Amino acid sequence: MRVRVFADADWPQVWQIVHEVVRAQETFPYDPAMTDGQARDAWIEAPPGLTVVAVDRDRVVGTAKMGPNRSGPGAHVSTASFMVAAADRGRGVGTALLDFAVGWAKAEGYAAMQFNAVVETNRSAVELYRRHGFEVVGTVPRSFAHPTLGRVGLHVMYREF
Amino acid sequence: MRVRVFADADWPQVWQIVHEVVRAQETFPYDPAMTDGQARDAWIEAPPGLTVVAVDRDRVVGTAKMGPNRSGPGAHVSTASFMVAAADRGRGVGTALLDFAVGWAKAEGYAAMQFNAVVETNRSAVELYRRHGFEVVGTVPRSFAHPTLGRVGLHVMYREF
Repeated sequence: MRVRVFADADWPQVWQIVHEVVRAQETFPYDPAMTDGQARDAWIEAPPGLTVVAVDRDRVVGTAKMGPNRSGPGAHVSTASFMVAAADRGRGVGTALLDFAVGWAKAEGYAAMQFNAVVETNRSAVELYRRHGFEVVGTVPRSFAHPTLGRVGLHVMYREF
Repeated sequence: MRVRVFADADWPQVWQIVHEVVRAQETFPYDPAMTDGQARDAWIEAPPGLTVVAVDRDRVVGTAKMGPNRSGPGAHVSTASFMVAAADRGRGVGTALLDFAVGWAKAEGYAAMQFNAVVETNRSAVELYRRHGFEVVGTVPRSFAHPTLGRVGLHVMYREF
Protein backbone atom coordinates (compact mmCIF):
# COMPACT_ATOMS: atom_id res chain seq x y z
CA MET A 1 0.00 0.00 0.00
CA ARG A 2 1.20 3.51 -0.75
CA VAL A 3 -0.12 7.02 -0.33
CA ARG A 4 0.05 9.41 -3.27
CA VAL A 5 -1.49 12.67 -4.43
CA PHE A 6 -5.08 12.40 -5.71
CA ALA A 7 -5.50 12.40 -9.51
CA ASP A 8 -8.74 13.13 -11.37
CA ALA A 9 -8.99 9.52 -12.51
CA ASP A 10 -9.25 8.43 -8.84
CA TRP A 11 -12.51 10.27 -8.26
CA PRO A 12 -14.98 7.40 -9.00
CA GLN A 13 -13.25 5.25 -6.37
CA VAL A 14 -12.87 8.12 -3.90
CA TRP A 15 -16.54 9.02 -4.31
CA GLN A 16 -17.49 5.41 -3.57
CA ILE A 17 -15.63 5.65 -0.24
CA VAL A 18 -16.98 9.11 0.62
CA HIS A 19 -20.50 8.01 -0.25
CA GLU A 20 -20.25 4.92 1.93
CA VAL A 21 -18.86 6.89 4.88
CA VAL A 22 -21.34 9.76 4.80
CA ARG A 23 -24.36 7.51 4.29
CA ALA A 24 -23.39 5.52 7.39
CA GLN A 25 -23.66 8.79 9.39
CA GLU A 26 -21.43 7.35 12.09
CA THR A 27 -18.22 9.33 11.73
CA PHE A 28 -18.62 12.49 9.62
CA PRO A 29 -20.88 15.51 10.09
CA TYR A 30 -21.53 15.68 6.35
CA ASP A 31 -24.91 15.65 4.64
CA PRO A 32 -25.66 11.95 3.93
CA ALA A 33 -27.58 13.05 0.82
CA MET A 34 -24.63 14.94 -0.62
CA THR A 35 -24.22 14.54 -4.36
CA ASP A 36 -21.15 13.49 -6.29
CA GLY A 37 -20.45 17.14 -7.12
CA GLN A 38 -20.91 18.38 -3.56
CA ALA A 39 -18.66 15.62 -2.28
CA ARG A 40 -16.00 16.54 -4.78
CA ASP A 41 -16.17 20.20 -3.76
CA ALA A 42 -15.90 19.19 -0.10
CA TRP A 43 -13.15 16.61 -0.41
CA ILE A 44 -10.80 17.74 -3.17
CA GLU A 45 -8.58 20.50 -1.79
CA ALA A 46 -7.01 23.26 -3.84
CA PRO A 47 -3.58 24.57 -2.78
CA PRO A 48 -2.46 25.28 -0.10
CA GLY A 49 -4.42 22.15 0.82
CA LEU A 50 -3.91 18.66 -0.59
CA THR A 51 -5.96 15.51 -1.17
CA VAL A 52 -4.32 12.08 -1.30
CA VAL A 53 -5.29 8.45 -1.77
CA ALA A 54 -4.03 5.22 -0.23
CA VAL A 55 -3.63 2.71 -3.03
CA ASP A 56 -3.28 -1.06 -2.80
CA ARG A 57 -2.42 -2.61 -6.19
CA ASP A 58 -4.18 0.14 -8.18
CA ARG A 59 -7.23 -0.01 -5.90
CA VAL A 60 -8.07 3.07 -3.80
CA VAL A 61 -8.63 1.86 -0.22
CA GLY A 62 -8.64 5.20 1.59
CA THR A 63 -8.33 8.95 1.16
CA ALA A 64 -7.32 12.00 3.15
CA LYS A 65 -7.44 15.74 2.77
CA MET A 66 -5.31 18.28 4.61
CA GLY A 67 -4.67 22.01 4.73
CA PRO A 68 -4.81 25.06 7.01
CA ASN A 69 -7.45 24.77 9.72
CA ARG A 70 -8.19 28.50 9.66
CA SER A 71 -7.06 31.62 7.84
CA GLY A 72 -4.89 34.56 8.82
CA PRO A 73 -3.93 34.41 12.50
CA GLY A 74 -5.03 30.74 12.61
CA ALA A 75 -3.17 29.56 9.52
CA HIS A 76 -0.20 28.06 11.39
CA VAL A 77 -2.43 25.17 12.50
CA SER A 78 -3.24 22.44 10.00
CA THR A 79 -6.20 20.09 9.87
CA ALA A 80 -6.88 16.81 8.10
CA SER A 81 -9.69 14.32 7.47
CA PHE A 82 -9.49 10.62 6.72
CA MET A 83 -11.78 8.02 5.19
CA VAL A 84 -11.09 4.30 4.74
CA ALA A 85 -13.25 1.89 2.73
CA ALA A 86 -15.26 -0.32 5.10
CA ALA A 87 -13.82 -3.50 3.56
CA ASP A 88 -10.26 -2.28 4.14
CA ARG A 89 -10.40 -1.20 7.77
CA GLY A 90 -8.06 -2.70 10.34
CA ARG A 91 -5.22 -3.02 7.83
CA GLY A 92 -3.28 0.11 8.70
CA VAL A 93 -4.73 2.33 5.98
CA GLY A 94 -5.69 5.02 8.50
CA THR A 95 -2.23 4.94 10.04
CA ALA A 96 -0.60 5.33 6.63
CA LEU A 97 -2.82 8.29 5.77
CA LEU A 98 -2.30 9.94 9.16
CA ASP A 99 1.47 9.50 8.93
CA PHE A 100 1.40 11.09 5.50
CA ALA A 101 -0.71 14.04 6.67
CA VAL A 102 1.44 14.76 9.71
CA GLY A 103 4.60 14.51 7.62
CA TRP A 104 3.13 16.83 5.03
CA ALA A 105 2.04 19.39 7.64
CA LYS A 106 5.48 19.40 9.26
CA ALA A 107 7.18 19.81 5.88
CA GLU A 108 4.85 22.68 5.01
CA GLY A 109 5.88 24.46 8.20
CA TYR A 110 2.67 24.13 10.21
CA ALA A 111 3.11 24.27 13.99
CA ALA A 112 0.31 21.85 14.89
CA MET A 113 -2.61 19.78 13.63
CA GLN A 114 -6.18 20.04 14.86
CA PHE A 115 -9.17 17.78 14.30
CA ASN A 116 -12.36 19.75 14.83
CA ALA A 117 -15.00 17.08 15.07
CA VAL A 118 -13.98 13.53 16.01
CA VAL A 119 -17.06 11.51 16.91
CA GLU A 120 -16.39 10.23 20.42
CA THR A 121 -17.86 6.82 19.67
CA ASN A 122 -15.48 6.38 16.71
CA ARG A 123 -13.03 4.51 18.92
CA SER A 124 -10.67 3.37 16.22
CA ALA A 125 -10.12 6.96 15.11
CA VAL A 126 -9.80 8.36 18.63
CA GLU A 127 -7.30 5.65 19.58
CA LEU A 128 -5.34 6.07 16.36
CA TYR A 129 -5.01 9.81 16.97
CA ARG A 130 -4.04 9.31 20.61
CA ARG A 131 -1.32 6.85 19.64
CA HIS A 132 0.02 9.53 17.31
CA GLY A 133 0.24 12.17 20.02
CA PHE A 134 -3.08 13.94 19.65
CA GLU A 135 -4.95 14.94 22.80
CA VAL A 136 -8.60 15.68 23.37
CA VAL A 137 -8.67 19.39 24.27
CA GLY A 138 -12.44 19.46 24.62
CA THR A 139 -15.63 17.60 23.80
CA VAL A 140 -18.78 19.31 22.57
CA PRO A 141 -21.56 17.26 24.15
CA ARG A 142 -24.47 15.85 22.17
CA SER A 143 -23.40 17.62 18.99
CA PHE A 144 -23.45 14.59 16.66
CA ALA A 145 -26.64 12.64 15.92
CA HIS A 146 -25.51 9.02 15.63
CA PRO A 147 -28.05 6.74 13.90
CA THR A 148 -28.11 4.13 16.68
CA LEU A 149 -26.46 5.75 19.71
CA GLY A 150 -28.33 9.07 19.65
CA ARG A 151 -26.61 12.38 20.29
CA VAL A 152 -22.98 11.83 21.15
CA GLY A 153 -20.06 14.21 21.63
CA LEU A 154 -17.54 15.56 19.16
CA HIS A 155 -13.94 15.77 20.34
CA VAL A 156 -11.57 18.54 19.39
CA MET A 157 -8.15 16.87 19.16
CA TYR A 158 -4.82 18.64 18.84
CA ARG A 159 -1.14 17.95 18.53
CA GLU A 160 1.81 20.33 18.28
CA PHE A 161 4.87 19.32 16.28
CA MET B 1 -30.72 50.46 17.81
CA ARG B 2 -32.37 47.55 16.09
CA VAL B 3 -31.29 44.33 14.45
CA ARG B 4 -32.65 43.47 11.03
CA VAL B 5 -31.88 41.18 8.10
CA PHE B 6 -28.95 42.27 5.91
CA ALA B 7 -29.87 43.95 2.61
CA ASP B 8 -27.55 44.36 -0.37
CA ALA B 9 -27.41 48.13 0.17
CA ASP B 10 -25.81 47.53 3.60
CA TRP B 11 -22.71 45.90 2.14
CA PRO B 12 -20.42 48.98 1.93
CA GLN B 13 -20.96 49.64 5.65
CA VAL B 14 -20.68 45.96 6.58
CA TRP B 15 -17.48 45.62 4.58
CA GLN B 16 -16.04 48.62 6.43
CA ILE B 17 -16.64 46.81 9.73
CA VAL B 18 -15.37 43.43 8.48
CA HIS B 19 -12.28 45.08 7.01
CA GLU B 20 -11.51 46.89 10.26
CA VAL B 21 -11.96 43.73 12.34
CA VAL B 22 -9.91 41.38 10.17
CA ARG B 23 -7.07 43.86 9.68
CA ALA B 24 -6.75 44.22 13.46
CA GLN B 25 -6.07 40.42 13.61
CA GLU B 26 -7.10 40.38 17.25
CA THR B 27 -10.39 38.49 17.19
CA PHE B 28 -11.03 36.61 13.93
CA PRO B 29 -8.99 33.87 12.22
CA TYR B 30 -9.68 35.42 8.81
CA ASP B 31 -7.12 36.48 6.24
CA PRO B 32 -6.34 40.15 7.00
CA ALA B 33 -5.73 40.68 3.28
CA MET B 34 -9.14 39.37 2.28
CA THR B 35 -10.77 41.32 -0.53
CA ASP B 36 -14.23 42.85 -0.61
CA GLY B 37 -15.47 39.87 -2.64
CA GLN B 38 -13.90 37.25 -0.38
CA ALA B 39 -15.34 39.00 2.66
CA ARG B 40 -18.77 39.05 1.10
CA ASP B 41 -18.56 35.32 0.31
CA ALA B 42 -17.47 34.60 3.87
CA TRP B 43 -19.91 36.85 5.70
CA ILE B 44 -23.16 36.84 3.72
CA GLU B 45 -24.99 33.59 4.44
CA ALA B 46 -27.39 31.89 2.08
CA PRO B 47 -30.35 29.97 3.57
CA PRO B 48 -30.52 28.08 5.87
CA GLY B 49 -28.10 30.64 7.33
CA LEU B 50 -28.80 34.33 7.85
CA THR B 51 -26.80 37.58 8.02
CA VAL B 52 -28.11 40.56 9.98
CA VAL B 53 -27.06 44.11 10.82
CA ALA B 54 -27.45 46.22 13.95
CA VAL B 55 -28.59 49.67 12.86
CA ASP B 56 -28.53 52.92 14.81
CA ARG B 57 -30.35 55.73 12.94
CA ASP B 58 -29.62 54.24 9.51
CA ARG B 59 -25.99 53.64 10.40
CA VAL B 60 -24.72 50.04 10.53
CA VAL B 61 -22.87 49.61 13.83
CA GLY B 62 -22.52 45.83 13.87
CA THR B 63 -23.25 42.65 12.00
CA ALA B 64 -23.77 38.96 12.66
CA LYS B 65 -24.09 35.77 10.68
CA MET B 66 -25.66 32.54 11.83
CA GLY B 67 -26.53 29.07 10.55
CA PRO B 68 -25.85 25.37 11.06
CA ASN B 69 -22.42 24.66 12.53
CA ARG B 70 -22.06 21.41 10.59
CA SER B 71 -24.02 19.30 8.11
CA GLY B 72 -25.95 16.05 8.39
CA PRO B 73 -25.55 14.51 11.85
CA GLY B 74 -24.19 17.84 13.17
CA ALA B 75 -26.90 20.10 11.75
CA HIS B 76 -28.90 20.38 14.99
CA VAL B 77 -26.19 22.68 16.41
CA SER B 78 -26.07 26.28 15.22
CA THR B 79 -23.16 28.69 15.13
CA ALA B 80 -22.87 32.46 14.84
CA SER B 81 -20.24 35.18 14.43
CA PHE B 82 -20.38 38.81 15.49
CA MET B 83 -18.55 42.00 14.56
CA VAL B 84 -19.05 45.46 16.04
CA ALA B 85 -17.53 48.67 14.67
CA ALA B 86 -14.64 49.79 16.91
CA ALA B 87 -16.26 53.19 17.51
CA ASP B 88 -19.48 51.56 18.70
CA ARG B 89 -18.19 49.00 21.20
CA GLY B 90 -19.37 49.05 24.81
CA ARG B 91 -22.86 50.19 23.85
CA GLY B 92 -24.66 46.85 23.85
CA VAL B 93 -24.40 46.17 20.13
CA GLY B 94 -22.86 42.74 20.70
CA THR B 95 -25.56 41.86 23.21
CA ALA B 96 -28.30 42.86 20.78
CA LEU B 97 -26.75 40.76 18.01
CA LEU B 98 -26.21 37.76 20.30
CA ASP B 99 -29.78 37.95 21.59
CA PHE B 100 -31.01 38.03 18.02
CA ALA B 101 -28.89 35.05 16.98
CA VAL B 102 -29.90 32.90 19.95
CA GLY B 103 -33.57 33.78 19.42
CA TRP B 104 -33.27 32.95 15.73
CA ALA B 105 -31.57 29.61 16.42
CA LYS B 106 -34.22 28.61 18.95
CA ALA B 107 -37.02 29.59 16.55
CA GLU B 108 -35.37 27.58 13.78
CA GLY B 109 -35.37 24.51 15.99
CA TYR B 110 -31.66 24.18 16.72
CA ALA B 111 -30.78 22.38 19.95
CA ALA B 112 -27.66 24.38 20.79
CA MET B 113 -25.19 27.03 19.62
CA GLN B 114 -21.44 26.57 19.29
CA PHE B 115 -18.65 29.08 18.79
CA ASN B 116 -15.66 27.34 17.25
CA ALA B 117 -12.87 29.85 17.70
CA VAL B 118 -13.24 32.53 20.38
CA VAL B 119 -9.87 34.21 20.94
CA GLU B 120 -9.18 33.75 24.66
CA THR B 121 -7.78 37.28 24.99
CA ASN B 122 -11.00 38.76 23.57
CA ARG B 123 -12.36 39.27 27.07
CA SER B 124 -15.42 41.28 26.14
CA ALA B 125 -16.61 38.49 23.84
CA VAL B 126 -15.80 35.68 26.26
CA GLU B 127 -17.58 37.49 29.11
CA LEU B 128 -20.56 38.35 26.92
CA TYR B 129 -20.96 34.72 25.91
CA ARG B 130 -20.57 33.49 29.48
CA ARG B 131 -23.26 35.87 30.70
CA HIS B 132 -25.54 34.39 28.05
CA GLY B 133 -25.03 30.83 29.23
CA PHE B 134 -22.19 29.68 27.01
CA GLU B 135 -19.44 27.59 28.54
CA VAL B 136 -15.89 26.96 27.43
CA VAL B 137 -15.82 23.25 26.54
CA GLY B 138 -12.18 23.34 25.49
CA THR B 139 -9.33 25.63 24.52
CA VAL B 140 -6.96 24.89 21.67
CA PRO B 141 -3.64 26.26 22.91
CA ARG B 142 -1.48 28.64 20.87
CA SER B 143 -3.73 28.34 17.85
CA PHE B 144 -4.24 32.08 17.19
CA ALA B 145 -1.35 34.40 16.31
CA HIS B 146 -2.20 37.68 18.05
CA PRO B 147 -0.23 40.69 16.72
CA THR B 148 0.98 41.83 20.15
CA LEU B 149 0.34 38.90 22.52
CA GLY B 150 1.82 36.12 20.41
CA ARG B 151 0.16 32.72 20.08
CA VAL B 152 -2.90 32.56 22.29
CA GLY B 153 -5.66 29.98 22.66
CA LEU B 154 -8.98 29.62 20.88
CA HIS B 155 -11.96 28.65 23.02
CA VAL B 156 -14.72 26.37 21.83
CA MET B 157 -17.86 27.69 23.58
CA TYR B 158 -21.23 25.97 23.68
CA ARG B 159 -24.73 26.42 25.01
CA GLU B 160 -27.74 24.14 24.76
CA PHE B 161 -31.21 25.66 24.60
